[in-house]
Amino acid sequence: MPAPTQFLKYIDSNTDAFIKRLGDAVAIPSISSDPTHRKDVFAMADWLNEQLKQLGVDTKLVDLGRHIMDGEDLPLPPAILGRVGNDSAKKTVLIYGHFDVQPAEKSDGWNTEPFTLVVNKETGQLIGRGSTDDKGPILGWLNVLQYHHENKLPLPVNLVLCFEGMEESGSEGLDDLVRRESEKGGYFDGVDCVCISDNYWLNTRTPVLTYGLRGLSYYKVTVSGPGRDLHSGVFGRTVHEPMTDLISLLGTLVTPQGDILIKGVDEMVAPPDEEEKKIYANLDYSIADVEEAAGASIALSSDKVAVLMGRMRSPSLSIHGIEGAFSAAGAKTVIPAKVSGRFSIRLVPPQTPEKIKPLVVNHLQKAFATLGSKNKLTVEELHGGKPWVADHRHWNFEAAKKATKAVYGQDPDLTREGGSIPVTLTFAESLGVNVLLLPMGRGDDGAHSTNEKLDISNFIEGSKLLGTYLYELADIQK
Amino acid sequence: MPAPTQFLKYIDSNTDAFIKRLGDAVAIPSISSDPTHRKDVFAMADWLNEQLKQLGVDTKLVDLGRHIMDGEDLPLPPAILGRVGNDSAKKTVLIYGHFDVQPAEKSDGWNTEPFTLVVNKETGQLIGRGSTDDKGPILGWLNVLQYHHENKLPLPVNLVLCFEGMEESGSEGLDDLVRRESEKGGYFDGVDCVCISDNYWLNTRTPVLTYGLRGLSYYKVTVSGPGRDLHSGVFGRTVHEPMTDLISLLGTLVTPQGDILIKGVDEMVAPPDEEEKKIYANLDYSIADVEEAAGASIALSSDKVAVLMGRMRSPSLSIHGIEGAFSAAGAKTVIPAKVSGRFSIRLVPPQTPEKIKPLVVNHLQKAFATLGSKNKLTVEELHGGKPWVADHRHWNFEAAKKATKAVYGQDPDLTREGGSIPVTLTFAESLGVNVLLLPMGRGDDGAHSTNEKLDISNFIEGSKLLGTYLYELADIQK
Repeated sequence: MPAPTQFLKYIDSNTDAFIKRLGDAVAIPSISSDPTHRKDVFAMADWLNEQLKQLGVDTKLVDLGRHIMDGEDLPLPPAILGRVGNDSAKKTVLIYGHFDVQPAEKSDGWNTEPFTLVVNKETGQLIGRGSTDDKGPILGWLNVLQYHHENKLPLPVNLVLCFEGMEESGSEGLDDLVRRESEKGGYFDGVDCVCISDNYWLNTRTPVLTYGLRGLSYYKVTVSGPGRDLHSGVFGRTVHEPMTDLISLLGTLVTPQGDILIKGVDEMVAPPDEEEKKIYANLDYSIADVEEAAGASIALSSDKVAVLMGRMRSPSLSIHGIEGAFSAAGAKTVIPAKVSGRFSIRLVPPQTPEKIKPLVVNHLQKAFATLGSKNKLTVEELHGGKPWVADHRHWNFEAAKKATKAVYGQDPDLTREGGSIPVTLTFAESLGVNVLLLPMGRGDDGAHSTNEKLDISNFIEGSKLLGTYLYELADIQK
Repeated sequence: MPAPTQFLKYIDSNTDAFIKRLGDAVAIPSISSDPTHRKDVFAMADWLNEQLKQLGVDTKLVDLGRHIMDGEDLPLPPAILGRVGNDSAKKTVLIYGHFDVQPAEKSDGWNTEPFTLVVNKETGQLIGRGSTDDKGPILGWLNVLQYHHENKLPLPVNLVLCFEGMEESGSEGLDDLVRRESEKGGYFDGVDCVCISDNYWLNTRTPVLTYGLRGLSYYKVTVSGPGRDLHSGVFGRTVHEPMTDLISLLGTLVTPQGDILIKGVDEMVAPPDEEEKKIYANLDYSIADVEEAAGASIALSSDKVAVLMGRMRSPSLSIHGIEGAFSAAGAKTVIPAKVSGRFSIRLVPPQTPEKIKPLVVNHLQKAFATLGSKNKLTVEELHGGKPWVADHRHWNFEAAKKATKAVYGQDPDLTREGGSIPVTLTFAESLGVNVLLLPMGRGDDGAHSTNEKLDISNFIEGSKLLGTYLYELADIQK
């Protein structure tokens, strides 16, 4: 069923109050990665918890313990769990969001104070740290709750909330919580589907539903030889140089065109069928958009489908850097004794870090053997995460498609993201239900950058979208 | 003619006084690279100048101006020029040395205070910063002068001294001085040959005369593309990555066996004839010595001649590192926007930086073109220096060979060094005379390292060698 017209009107007519509330949230510098701001993350949890309680949500703060950061033993900010409704005749939707933010200083290049929400009436933008990542989306849910609470109307679904304060610092403590509460009798028991609003449209025009994220397999490959750094005058052309070997090895991994040369990695992924190709062809995203975002005309192909598939449904291999070599300016004539290359592979199904690792290790060992070097090779996997792809024909997505069409008057683009949001996979695996990524903001919001913003229209229409999605969920056929 | 027996006896019987004087020199921490020690370099110049005057040398301190170091405008320590004798019937020898030293702190790993000369009677070593590099050799000359001054004996040759205090910091100001004073009517006008004692034996057993040094051509190759660093999740396999391109380029430069793949570089050097090969075969230096110095069994070959030629008479290419990429620990998933590889080529005659540069630039441009990348390439030469090879059959060397045989009872090894001592070439080119490198210390002295030492026997026999060399020079046929 469509959302009540009253709801849509309510959102429109309360725009100023909603923006003011977002300003209150942005004003709390809840930077999770900075120990000196840890108290602000706690303050943000308290503020949000208070808001939720005022809107009739039954909440609880869950202590996630302590951790070490920058050598300091710190308390982790609590997760906020909440529930609205417990009607067994209704579907139960789990909503995830995070109330911590990335660091920001005016001196980083912000045009305004990052923790003062600035309303630019001319551009229609709300500028401030956390505006789009992820306080805006969380407050979108509050806007929906407020309409129902003030009008004493029941929600069309049962809502389970899970908000955390450590997302920008590895979601520490959350995985355990999710797994524990997903068990029989746990807080999340009975959840039918999940909705996460923590990513972005591809562009500035077209709403998006996201059904996939790439995984990651991160490697460190080390070549060592000399007992200490050597002088290139004294030892050049007398000994095997670790840098020469490492450069050779790193050169065997990927072509300048992005093809992965580690046997079995690209081959593990089935080619797309015609229907899937159509998804990419239909996306409102051009090579010009990719190149604008990258800041240069450096797309791997002039074929839009090829470029978008490269990001969304293909593995990729990037070489990040070298540790132990000379990395400064100047002209040091050193032969570094021990150098470590770092590279990572973004994974797509059916790839997993476990399946990829032996291929990588075997490839490097074989390549090293062909060098005929007397140096030593070691390969380490630093960390990994599985990719995630959801069924975008699932009723959870169908409800979101209908809601998007209703609010925005257009069908959403169906996207897969090139990066990772690890908690997505945790929810999908722990609960065994469909997870939908339903972004509120635009591709140019600058989530982790300076001058982060959320367009007023995205905040307001996005709030309508979240509410409408709940109504469409309510009576869609499971 | 051989040195007078009285001279040799004098050196032996004054060992303790000579060691004490070396201790006085070592006690002045004349670190030229540390602005806070600049006053000590001046103090060292004064101390040395005073010593020379007391030994009858006619000296002058030459102001070399000022320079900027670590953002500080500092006076350069003076060069000390000196002269003993001006007999047109005698040969005139120019002696070079430097009275500044490398930095040293006990906390670097020294077993003793670096600026307190420690006499280890058990090992026969004199331990302290500057003991072998280059205060020991300079004081060797003082020992020779003292004998003649105390006994009111004329030197068998005219001596011109040139001692500087900035050798460990690029010999700033010296090149101009040498060029100026080498002109007609200059301080060095009339010099017949040069002797520099500022390098080392190959091993711990066999005296050495050195007749060659490699030159250097240092390059920075930069690949840039994106407008800023990109996230590998979002952009992996959509754009040309500068690191992938740079790794490919660096991989085309040199094989793990040390062969230079830049067309024309290795080919520019004529292969050795059988006579030259014999020099390397006869050197008292084994692959085990090379590997012990390198700290691992990583020699490029099991053929001693091949390994020694690699260092002494072949060009070499070393990759030093990459600027702009991720170089820390951890697992950052960045696509660096602009990365610069640094590599250098050690040169041997007839190679010069000017001849090598077009080959390098052309090679990199061609290799980059084959990558099919849309990124941008730039190649810069950061600095260069010509190689130097002297005629080791010249009377200057013949005199040193006779002196070595007389003092050590064995023929010296004839070596070429893999590194550079730029002032050598300046003297050779400015004066147009033969330059001899006549080292005092051993290969394990640790010149720039912790626990730098000079063996007492090398200090004493080395002093005899320097004096004997002057006597052999005196009557050798020009």
